[in-house]
Amino acid sequence: MGLFVQKYGGSSVADAVCMRRVAKRIRDTQADGHQVVVVVSAMGDTTDDLITLAKQVNPEPNEREMDSLLATGEMASSAILTMALNAIGVKAISMTGHQAGIRVDGTHLKAKIEAIDPKRIHRHLKQGFVVVVAGFQGTNRRKDTATLGRGGSDTTAVALAAALKADRCQILKDVDGIFTANPRVVPKAHKLEVITYDEMLELASCGAEVLQSRAVECAKNYGVVLEVVSSFVIKPGTLVREEVDTMEKMIIRGIAADKNQAKATLLGVPDTPGVAARIFKTLAAANINVDMIVQNVSAAGITDVSFTVGRDDVAKTRRVIEPLVKTIRAEGLNFDDNIAKVSLVGVGMKSHSGVAYKMFDVLAAKKVNIEMISTSEIKISVAVRATHADQAVRALHTAFGMDAPTKKKAKKTAAKTATAAKQKQ
Amino acid sequence: MGLFVQKYGGSSVADAVCMRRVAKRIRDTQADGHQVVVVVSAMGDTTDDLITLAKQVNPEPNEREMDSLLATGEMASSAILTMALNAIGVKAISMTGHQAGIRVDGTHLKAKIEAIDPKRIHRHLKQGFVVVVAGFQGTNRRKDTATLGRGGSDTTAVALAAALKADRCQILKDVDGIFTANPRVVPKAHKLEVITYDEMLELASCGAEVLQSRAVECAKNYGVVLEVVSSFVIKPGTLVREEVDTMEKMIIRGIAADKNQAKATLLGVPDTPGVAARIFKTLAAANINVDMIVQNVSAAGITDVSFTVGRDDVAKTRRVIEPLVKTIRAEGLNFDDNIAKVSLVGVGMKSHSGVAYKMFDVLAAKKVNIEMISTSEIKISVAVRATHADQAVRALHTAFGMDAPTKKKAKKTAAKTATAAKQKQ
Repeated sequence: MGLFVQKYGGSSVADAVCMRRVAKRIRDTQADGHQVVVVVSAMGDTTDDLITLAKQVNPEPNEREMDSLLATGEMASSAILTMALNAIGVKAISMTGHQAGIRVDGTHLKAKIEAIDPKRIHRHLKQGFVVVVAGFQGTNRRKDTATLGRGGSDTTAVALAAALKADRCQILKDVDGIFTANPRVVPKAHKLEVITYDEMLELASCGAEVLQSRAVECAKNYGVVLEVVSSFVIKPGTLVREEVDTMEKMIIRGIAADKNQAKATLLGVPDTPGVAARIFKTLAAANINVDMIVQNVSAAGITDVSFTVGRDDVAKTRRVIEPLVKTIRAEGLNFDDNIAKVSLVGVGMKSHSGVAYKMFDVLAAKKVNIEMISTSEIKISVAVRATHADQAVRALHTAFGMDAPTKKKAKKTAAKTATAAKQKQ
Repeated sequence: MGLFVQKYGGSSVADAVCMRRVAKRIRDTQADGHQVVVVVSAMGDTTDDLITLAKQVNPEPNEREMDSLLATGEMASSAILTMALNAIGVKAISMTGHQAGIRVDGTHLKAKIEAIDPKRIHRHLKQGFVVVVAGFQGTNRRKDTATLGRGGSDTTAVALAAALKADRCQILKDVDGIFTANPRVVPKAHKLEVITYDEMLELASCGAEVLQSRAVECAKNYGVVLEVVSSFVIKPGTLVREEVDTMEKMIIRGIAADKNQAKATLLGVPDTPGVAARIFKTLAAANINVDMIVQNVSAAGITDVSFTVGRDDVAKTRRVIEPLVKTIRAEGLNFDDNIAKVSLVGVGMKSHSGVAYKMFDVLAAKKVNIEMISTSEIKISVAVRATHADQAVRALHTAFGMDAPTKKKAKKTAAKTATAAKQKQ
């Protein structure tokens, strides 16, 4: 018994058949005695189709207009899902971001939610309605519609859960939850029962694509208990929450590989004070996120400086750093696309020493060369050749005792689930 | 110099190419020194596609949800058109019905505009913007979106023109204006320079499909000068306005044929007082519009009663009248689909006698049998065999001196226009 916010993504509501399936899922949740607020994304490829159409009439569409356009996708899908709910006897009402009381700031295409006035939603919940809210959008002070950017519907769901003081915010996915590693790479990866906000944030920033960082941050800030759960079958997923004592003790919660990285190297940089500052100030000014940094031991007053950037930022990095090569009298700039970042994440690291040592040892045994290293309190990342990444992840998964026990039962159940083979139940 | 409201229908904005063409048309209007407010329909078949999708999840979708769904079509097209305007250097901003200040009553799918608060539109016009308003929609007191039903975007345009005190409300079409008759049926039909509201209303109710009656009524009520004009080329169209002395004197302004009619006949009805009242009360209660009525001369206390209904209403008429056949002890009910209504419309009729006589005479000469007759102050309609309708319209067009003079120039120009061949310039 409680108030559940459920978020369904675009692929879950891609057509009429999907809509009917989601409607049944919602009806079942309500039948379990819960009040349900649903947040829904645009159907299937709607958003991409709208962007394509916009670019056909204007290669650089105005951001306000783009927001007005894109927001229609979620409005339409919330109305269709409501009709599908009505069709199976569920009282339901759709709401745009505006009608749901979602007020956002003045920026377009990546607006932030400023406040939510949940009065209307509460009123309809009390009357027994399922409330279906168009995700990804809100209204600013000028009465204009603005969208929240990537992962916006997840953020809508979390913010609504916070404003409504919901008991849980469920993100429904085509996977069963969050896994110790990508099950397509690591057959023995298993579903986690629980993960902390901080671990989830580190994993998301290390290439795990299950949840958007922004939604997790919002959940952390407001103490919203998130659950990543299958949209196909009703069974427990993975809870994302504050660390508690009763949590299963695991040193490493998850292993991620991010192949969408590139290494930039500034060659022959004169090793004078302030040079590094100039390089990274330039990158920051251009809004380029740098993750790992390595500076070689200086020889004859000359050094090489390497750093990793997202692969999408390579062109931009080249544009801003190339002029600098001359100014700081470096010898050149090159890029290496063939790298991947492999990361271990776990709050258990804080109290366990030797994790880094063990990681390096495992990789050395597999002859995987480590090119760069970065760490946080609960994370160790290494850059390796991209071609070695999957092998590295599998070896680490086994070495840190994360492989699912091989049971007959586990195999049987896994065969029944729609995705993500061989997981621990 | 003035404030123009321009309305573009769905086929005018069906895709990116059409959008760009409409954008240029608007730029040209602005370049002539006018302020422009644009009302736009949903792109091409969008509305039909959305209805199809809705019916896939629910055969009887909730009306509020249907409104929320359908309104997204016009929202999207207003944003796209605004982007297309921006792309050619025109300052423009899109507005939903809500943002444009359009308040409607509580009914869904056929809401009525209650009030318009034009402040925001005025503000943007003053700043030099073209304002692109999503047609067909408004917001009710509950903050819900409601649509205006068939021809809703025309009504939006007229209502905005009234609220903004616009100098003209242009309805842009793929025809050059309103013609004396359908040019596909009557090659010598010519474009009218002007027509009165009342004539236009009669023509619309007699099967001329150029303008929705509701928009014309609204224009009449608020004295908005309407112009039906080509969306392809800038040239004068047809003005729809109050009758003024300077108008061209024409006894008959237009001839229409409505082939979407059916004749119902109740056979052997006992000719007792109150029987007709029962029949037509029953039809009125079922919301069935009856146009022409004929009751035969009674013989032996028995008579036949015939009336015309729209062909779409045949099934409904059968449903409500069949039970009545027994109650009033009539002998039977039959329907005849093979009829058409041919109508002459013109305010000149008021001051000219002999129009009816001449009409009947012309049809008799062509051996066209008249089955029923109805008249108003400015209209005469007759029911004839559907197969005779086109021939009747052509004969009447010639007899009432409405054929366009055959000029070389006229032929040459007509060849250049995209549609509606051979018209008087």
